Amino acid sequence: MKLLDLYAKMKGDLNQIEQELEHSVSDDHVLLSDASLHLLKAGGKRIRPIFVLLAGKFGDYRLDVMKLVAVPLELIHMASLVHDDVIDDADTRRGQLTVKSKWDNRIAMYTGDYIHGKALSIASQLPNPQIHQILSNALVQMCIGEMEQIRDFFNTGQSVRHYLRRIRRKTALLIAISCKLGAVAAETDRKTANQLYRYGYNVGMAFQIRDDLLDLYGTEKQIGKPPGSDMRQGNITLPVILALKDKRARETLLLEIASIRDNGGQKDAGRAIEIIRKSEGGDLADQLANRYIKKAFQALEGLPNVAAKKNLIDIAHFVGKRNY
Amino acid sequence: MKLLDLYAKMKGDLNQIEQELEHSVSDDHVLLSDASLHLLKAGGKRIRPIFVLLAGKFGDYRLDVMKLVAVPLELIHMASLVHDDVIDDADTRRGQLTVKSKWDNRIAMYTGDYIHGKALSIASQLPNPQIHQILSNALVQMCIGEMEQIRDFFNTGQSVRHYLRRIRRKTALLIAISCKLGAVAAETDRKTANQLYRYGYNVGMAFQIRDDLLDLYGTEKQIGKPPGSDMRQGNITLPVILALKDKRARETLLLEIASIRDNGGQKDAGRAIEIIRKSEGGDLADQLANRYIKKAFQALEGLPNVAAKKNLIDIAHFVGKRNY
Repeated sequence: MKLLDLYAKMKGDLNQIEQELEHSVSDDHVLLSDASLHLLKAGGKRIRPIFVLLAGKFGDYRLDVMKLVAVPLELIHMASLVHDDVIDDADTRRGQLTVKSKWDNRIAMYTGDYIHGKALSIASQLPNPQIHQILSNALVQMCIGEMEQIRDFFNTGQSVRHYLRRIRRKTALLIAISCKLGAVAAETDRKTANQLYRYGYNVGMAFQIRDDLLDLYGTEKQIGKPPGSDMRQGNITLPVILALKDKRARETLLLEIASIRDNGGQKDAGRAIEIIRKSEGGDLADQLANRYIKKAFQALEGLPNVAAKKNLIDIAHFVGKRNY
Repeated sequence: MKLLDLYAKMKGDLNQIEQELEHSVSDDHVLLSDASLHLLKAGGKRIRPIFVLLAGKFGDYRLDVMKLVAVPLELIHMASLVHDDVIDDADTRRGQLTVKSKWDNRIAMYTGDYIHGKALSIASQLPNPQIHQILSNALVQMCIGEMEQIRDFFNTGQSVRHYLRRIRRKTALLIAISCKLGAVAAETDRKTANQLYRYGYNVGMAFQIRDDLLDLYGTEKQIGKPPGSDMRQGNITLPVILALKDKRARETLLLEIASIRDNGGQKDAGRAIEIIRKSEGGDLADQLANRYIKKAFQALEGLPNVAAKKNLIDIAHFVGKRNY
């Protein structure tokens, strides 16, 4: 089944999630609500709700319960985006003006805080304290991931392990707990919930590596912005770290990165991208992404053959596919 | 009993809360931890933990349970301070460099997010879902209060009602829920918890009005910064709103505020303060603070005569006392 078919099949439930998302930020304060809705309507793949819903299919799937975790998880993701845009000084995201650009940094900061609060408020309708523990711990870990990213800007000495730890917190964790909380909310047994967590974690790692590859190997049309924006920002990603290990690339690449840093990220990253593309960094990063995808498949082994299992496999295949 | 005596009496329990506060932000990421500890060690009256502990005395007081709400409430207060400092562009607070000044805005934003997450993570050890509902709702309301404050900067047309609604969200709510959650965690009956909520709400309202009065009527030594900083920032507080209703003051005060605004808050607020002090704004604001204090006393009526009740009365007296 293609991913579009999956969206089509889940359309009814996803529409309800979408309505709840809008509803969740539509009351209260006009400006906060406008900023939040602006963010919401800029779209997104709603990948976290999809994982919640699919994981829920392994247990007692009741949409009115599932949405109490699906909506908070997407909101937490949204809140992290709006705070990222403050930090990154980003003017557009997904082709739309960011909140910090359309309004200002102050409004973006409080919009993020507000959406966080709303997320937790919705989840607090569920009595299971495990859900709150997992959610609040994820918030802490995500902040640490963001701070690590800031600290590591232009750090060309970082190891692969360092990078992996950072993307685990920044990306993989929220996808992992989307799978886990979907299972917990549907009251699956603990083993199933943990397997789904592992699936989500591995897909999330592969997803971020692929995303980082795309920023260096994709076309401007594919990415929606000029390639190399991570590098211009100082975000040293896996293909770069691996390219720096390649003797043919190392010295020239170091000089290019230093030059981008010294120009405050204003410099075109074209030359650096060229060096990376000629190195083995891309292929090695690609192989690592595929290893995570394999582990994602393994995590699903032994789970009952419900339709959702097939869907999760399809998603992992899709994430694993090289599309640049 | 004087307030210092109350601190002395509660010293043992407050020390434990202090240790837990430090512990709560001491692990994980070094920079986040440093920034959080810097904020923590800048001090503060720990008024929210005090309310939690005193409210707990009306029920089954167990410090290991009480601290699971006292620590999160102080952390939420701290997180709101660190985000406020980003917004207010403040370089010092309580005579110490702010996080945004010692580090930068990005770190201040994520430090706030991190402390929020930690707060909720600690509270999530308590199984009672009501606690999570109350806490997350408070986060939402506090954001709305902050946004209202930003929106209302230099708005000289705002009503007293408007001001009261803003400080309710900004200040009174967190004090009210400190009292309520102390009671809920100590499993008092619902009526007691609601009475303590009303007490905290009214004390909180009086506390903010007094604070706003102090900024206009206090000396630099009392305030720790030059008087009129609210006004320079554009924050139109109750004495100003009431002074604007005083015909003798209105026209000249409007001109002064417009001039402060047009100078980007750089202008000395001395002249505006002089006008306000000659108006009836201060006295009227004072009277309103006292009305809230009276309501706080009324809220306690009928509660059992435990020592904590006397302490809460003492605190209300202290908040009610004009000290400028």
